[in-house]
Amino acid sequence: MADETVEVSIAEAKAATAKALMKIGWDEADAELQAGIMTAAEVCGNNQGLVKMYNPVLMKPAEGASKPVVERDTGSSAVVNGNQSPGMVAASMAADLAVEKVKAGVTIAIVSAYNTCTSSGQLGYYVGKMAEKGVVGIALANSPEFVAASKGAKPVFGTNPMAFGIPKSDGPPVIFDMSTSSIALFGVLTAKAKGEALPDGVATDSTGEYTTDAAKVLEGGAIQTFGGHKGAGLSLMVELLAGALSGGAVLGQVDSKKSAKSWGHTIIAIAPGPLTDGFEEKAASICSTVKSSGDVRLPGEGSSSIAAERTAAGKLPIPKKIWDMIQKTGEEGLQ
Amino acid sequence: MADETVEVSIAEAKAATAKALMKIGWDEADAELQAGIMTAAEVCGNNQGLVKMYNPVLMKPAEGASKPVVERDTGSSAVVNGNQSPGMVAASMAADLAVEKVKAGVTIAIVSAYNTCTSSGQLGYYVGKMAEKGVVGIALANSPEFVAASKGAKPVFGTNPMAFGIPKSDGPPVIFDMSTSSIALFGVLTAKAKGEALPDGVATDSTGEYTTDAAKVLEGGAIQTFGGHKGAGLSLMVELLAGALSGGAVLGQVDSKKSAKSWGHTIIAIAPGPLTDGFEEKAASICSTVKSSGDVRLPGEGSSSIAAERTAAGKLPIPKKIWDMIQKTGEEGLQ
Repeated sequence: MADETVEVSIAEAKAATAKALMKIGWDEADAELQAGIMTAAEVCGNNQGLVKMYNPVLMKPAEGASKPVVERDTGSSAVVNGNQSPGMVAASMAADLAVEKVKAGVTIAIVSAYNTCTSSGQLGYYVGKMAEKGVVGIALANSPEFVAASKGAKPVFGTNPMAFGIPKSDGPPVIFDMSTSSIALFGVLTAKAKGEALPDGVATDSTGEYTTDAAKVLEGGAIQTFGGHKGAGLSLMVELLAGALSGGAVLGQVDSKKSAKSWGHTIIAIAPGPLTDGFEEKAASICSTVKSSGDVRLPGEGSSSIAAERTAAGKLPIPKKIWDMIQKTGEEGLQ
Repeated sequence: MADETVEVSIAEAKAATAKALMKIGWDEADAELQAGIMTAAEVCGNNQGLVKMYNPVLMKPAEGASKPVVERDTGSSAVVNGNQSPGMVAASMAADLAVEKVKAGVTIAIVSAYNTCTSSGQLGYYVGKMAEKGVVGIALANSPEFVAASKGAKPVFGTNPMAFGIPKSDGPPVIFDMSTSSIALFGVLTAKAKGEALPDGVATDSTGEYTTDAAKVLEGGAIQTFGGHKGAGLSLMVELLAGALSGGAVLGQVDSKKSAKSWGHTIIAIAPGPLTDGFEEKAASICSTVKSSGDVRLPGEGSSSIAAERTAAGKLPIPKKIWDMIQKTGEEGLQ
C-alpha cells in the first residue's frame, strides 16, 4: 500500500497478526493458524500475505461463525462444512484430511470445503504442505464475482486460482500457484492505494471498456481472465469444480456469491507410489531438464529465493501502513 | 492440407479410415476404435481428426506392438501399460477403467497410461465419454519435445493438453480441451503444407528468434507455451502429472521422449454424488449464467455446433489430399 516499509522479525509479525485476529473475535487456534498462513505468504513475497490485515473488518468472524465439521465422509472423499469459519481454517482441514485418506491407503482422495466466510489466501501454502508429506496436491478455489468471461461481460468468476504441489527428490516441492485472472484482485487494490496505473488490457470499467485506472475497475468494472479463451475456459472449470462440486454458492442459484458468503474449495491428494516407482526422482529429473533448457524460471523459484533470504535474516519488510494497522487492531480491535 | 475438400458421408469416412488402419497393420478392433475417434474429432472440426492419416506411416504399429494390459490395479487407481498399442486404444481403456472404479464405489479414481506408440488425439473425446456417464472427467497427456519453456529455450514439453468433461442437466456435457502451447503442432504442419504464415510470437526458429515461417519452426525451432509464465507452469504440471506419474518416458531419464516412444496420460474420474447434491443442475446454472453474462462463447460451443450440422447432414468435408491418402492407404498400404 504505502511505499514506506518497516523491518519486522518473522516471529513478531506472526504474533502481532495472531493477536489482532484474536482481538477481532477469533479464538487462539484459528488466529494462530491464519496468522501463520498469512505470514508464510508474506515471507515468500506472495500478494496474499499480511495485506489482508490492512482492512481487518474483512477478516472478522461472520455472524454465527463456528468450527468447521466434516460431512459426507467416505474412504476417498469428504466435504468440510466451514460453518462460516475462515477460509484458511477450512482449507487447512480439507488438505490435511485429503492427505490422511491417501496415507490410509487410497491412491487418490478429494476433499472439498464450502461455507467459509473469508478467503483461503495463498493456495500454494496448502499444496506445499501436502507435497512436503510426499503427496501430490492440487487445489482449486472460487471466489466472488470480480472477473469477466469476456471483454465487456459482467463479472462472474473469482480470480479462481489453481495450485499444484509436487514432491521431488532433490529439494523442496515444486509449487505452482496461479490465478486464472490476468491480474489478482490484490493487484488492483494495491494499484489503487498507490495511485499507480494498471497494465493495459487486464481490466475494464463499468462500461466494459479497458481501463488502467484501478478505481474505475473497482466501481462496477471487471478484471479479465488471462491467456485468451484458454484462461476463460480454465476459470470456468475452477468455477465448476470448486464452486459446484464443493457445495459452495453456485452462480445463478444465489443472488451473488459475494452476498452468499460461501466460497468453495476442492483439494485432491494423489499418492504417487501406487502409480509409478521413483516419482520424486522423475519429478526432479523433469524440473532440472526444463530448468537447463534455456533461460527458464521454474514455478516458485522467485518466491523460494525471497523466502530463503527472509528466513535466514529472520525478518521481513512490511508496508508501514499495514504493520501499523496490525498493531493498532491488536490493541484496539476494529474501529 | 490443400484447400480443395470433398464431401464424404461420416459412415464412409470412418469405414475407409478403419480399412486403411487395418491395411497398415492394426487388427479390426484397434482400427475401428481409432477410426471412430479420429472421425469424431473431424466431425466437430477439431484439428486432431483425419489429418493424422495424411502421413499414415506415423500411425503404423511400432515394433513389437501388442495389446494394452492393466498393471498396479487398486480400488482407486490403475496403470495401463500400452505395450506400444495406439495412444487412442490405451487412453480409451484408461478412461473406461477410471469410470468403472468410480461406478464401483470410490468417489475419485486415477488411471494412467504409458508406453503407447502414437498420439491419443483429441483428449476431449475421452472426457466427453466419461461425462456422458455422469462422471467428471479430467485428462492430461504429454508428448514429444516440440514446445519450449521460454523464448529461445530448447523444446522440452509436448503440446501437453488438459481436458475436462463436466456433465450438466440441461444438455450435453461441457467439454474443455486445450493444449498448453500457443499453437498446436498440427497448426504448424498445416501452415507449412498450405504455405501460410504462423501468427506472430507463437514459435521460434533454430536460433531461438520468433518466426512466422512454419518450415523454420519444424527445422529445429520450437513452439511457445500460451499465456506467459502461467501457460509454461501449466505445461510443466502436465509434464509432471502425465509424464512422471504415468510411467511414461521422463525428460532427462531418456535421450528424448520422441525416440523413447512412450507418451503418458493421466485420467481422473470424479463421481459428483458423494460430494454434493444436484451437481448437474449446478453445472447447468453456472454455464447458463456465464453464457448470459455478455458476449461469451462457452468451451465446446463452436465444435458442438459444427458437429450438430455435420451429424444432421450425415457428411463432412475432408481435404481432398487427406481423403485420397486414406483411400489409397486402404488399397495399397504404406508406400
